[in-house]
Amino acid sequence: MVKLKKKKKEAIKMYKIAVDAMGGDHAPETVVAGVEKAREQLPNVEFILYGDLAKVKPLIQDLRQIELVQADDALGMADEPVKSVRTRKQSSLVMAATAVKTGEADAFFSAGNTGAVLAAAIFLIGRIKGISRPALMTLMPAMGGLHDAFVMMDMGANAENRASHLYEYGILGSFYAHDILQYENPRVGLLNNGTEPDKGDSVHKEAHVLLQNGSDAKYLNFIGNVESSELLQGAADVVVADGFSGNAALKATEGTAKTLMKMLKNMIKQGNLRTKLGGLLLLPALKNLGEKFNPEQYGGAVVLGVKAPVVKAHGSAGPDAIAAALGQIEKMLTINLTGNVQSFVAEHQNDLTSQQN
Amino acid sequence: MVKLKKKKKEAIKMYKIAVDAMGGDHAPETVVAGVEKAREQLPNVEFILYGDLAKVKPLIQDLRQIELVQADDALGMADEPVKSVRTRKQSSLVMAATAVKTGEADAFFSAGNTGAVLAAAIFLIGRIKGISRPALMTLMPAMGGLHDAFVMMDMGANAENRASHLYEYGILGSFYAHDILQYENPRVGLLNNGTEPDKGDSVHKEAHVLLQNGSDAKYLNFIGNVESSELLQGAADVVVADGFSGNAALKATEGTAKTLMKMLKNMIKQGNLRTKLGGLLLLPALKNLGEKFNPEQYGGAVVLGVKAPVVKAHGSAGPDAIAAALGQIEKMLTINLTGNVQSFVAEHQNDLTSQQN
Repeated sequence: MVKLKKKKKEAIKMYKIAVDAMGGDHAPETVVAGVEKAREQLPNVEFILYGDLAKVKPLIQDLRQIELVQADDALGMADEPVKSVRTRKQSSLVMAATAVKTGEADAFFSAGNTGAVLAAAIFLIGRIKGISRPALMTLMPAMGGLHDAFVMMDMGANAENRASHLYEYGILGSFYAHDILQYENPRVGLLNNGTEPDKGDSVHKEAHVLLQNGSDAKYLNFIGNVESSELLQGAADVVVADGFSGNAALKATEGTAKTLMKMLKNMIKQGNLRTKLGGLLLLPALKNLGEKFNPEQYGGAVVLGVKAPVVKAHGSAGPDAIAAALGQIEKMLTINLTGNVQSFVAEHQNDLTSQQN
Repeated sequence: MVKLKKKKKEAIKMYKIAVDAMGGDHAPETVVAGVEKAREQLPNVEFILYGDLAKVKPLIQDLRQIELVQADDALGMADEPVKSVRTRKQSSLVMAATAVKTGEADAFFSAGNTGAVLAAAIFLIGRIKGISRPALMTLMPAMGGLHDAFVMMDMGANAENRASHLYEYGILGSFYAHDILQYENPRVGLLNNGTEPDKGDSVHKEAHVLLQNGSDAKYLNFIGNVESSELLQGAADVVVADGFSGNAALKATEGTAKTLMKMLKNMIKQGNLRTKLGGLLLLPALKNLGEKFNPEQYGGAVVLGVKAPVVKAHGSAGPDAIAAALGQIEKMLTINLTGNVQSFVAEHQNDLTSQQN
């Protein structure tokens, strides 16, 4: 008994996550609720909440594992990202990111302005040495593949991409799929406008060559081009996309799923008795289907390529999605994803740099 | 009675559509069936079918309005487009396009190799003077907007695009929406990774400026950037996209709709008694929903910017989709879409060329 207790004590390493309590459409309410929900699952995490404490404090039911820091300012969704991060040092978002920079926290979470989260991640927390373009990674649902989700990046951090950036996304995405999702030898596909190797514009043609070289060197497992029509079928475990078309494909997927579910509901509502009854009977199953299609169940968008875990939840994320995102951060900390990437890049820096030239 | 007959005779102008009878997954069967279906609706069209007559002829039930021309060769889906169009002059696809070039036919239809259809359209039929990049246009369903469909281009003809090309797509798409769909003052949106005017890479930032200039000059009605999540909601009547991300958005939409419907069916099939019964009752309405989401009901992909109507149906298109595509061509011929675009471009050539520099 005594022995077991001692062992447990040794095993637990505590982590600190800096939380932007004011970011998101319904902040700070949803953020506080999400943190309290996450805490029940994460005994090894301390949450440092940055925000307007007059608003934040009354929302907290229990201060266990929670530290509060006053932030006098809060960024809005429309604020210009780079400028805001540089000038509004007292904002909750910038203070939370700065805490990672100074070593007070191990990771950074926000449901606020995406551009500002990215800018804070890159300028305050900093790129991993050897990675030229940190990017946004999201998990998407896969139906009927080997696994029930796949990694996709870049989802829109970088509107302009070089082939070497796409190659880096392949490396970073593979690390996430392998280390966090525990996929064996994750299959990397390049999002392109056809499956043949010579498809796409010059950037994608060149990226195909770089990814193939990386695959030959066993740095990743490249399976070739994939088309956006096949993604949800689980065509690849890691989908590499330039930020512009990755963003277009992601949003088209979200929009289509949303529109179809809405049409289905309208159809039931406005249908005849038969349709209405059918809809009523199908309701629980339909809800289930909607859930499967909700990318938020997997957590938030991860900024990969920076020196600490950074996760950005959707602005409209509820407490469950925020708790999932915080759980995702804890996993990255426990596994030491950033450290693993850093070691790999340091070891293979010559290879990576030669690709970049 | 006599008077009426005479009037009717004068009013009907006959058009000839050159049909690649061998293009498509189930050609020539589906093509022949589609042509015979279309004929019933189109008394003013004569169809010239190019193909292996030993196969084609026995399939035809009635030769009314149908002319047959032997083609000894047929292109496959995997054949290299440009090279095939240049060298395989006896193929049904190349012969059909050539008939438009020589004036024997007024328009060209194929359900075959997309790249070859494009190459044939550009190299044989030729670009409209003043248009630098013909592109693929598709109609997509819009739910809850002003209209029940919208025009989107380029869907993948051009993997690399300049801003001036995107501007041309806006002009061409507007003509289609106005002349063929009869939309009043069609709203043109630029597919981008955010709605703010400064979003996107340099090409999209510049395209935004060009489209705005064109809107100021009343050549089109530009409403700004649109995101792919909003397209199906009818965010714009004409969506301008670079061919690479337009292709990604289109295929993501198709893939998501297909995956969701498949999941819904699986869910019903594998569900409990309640779910199964609900599914059974809902079946007719679900079929209806699937139909609404089938872009083929609107016809095929149109190559806009060339000197004659060119429509490419999906390789898997059935007789209905092929008949719809042929009906679409007849409309373009009757309205004289190509002529209208040519007149506009000739009149505004200085404006257009200045945009291209």
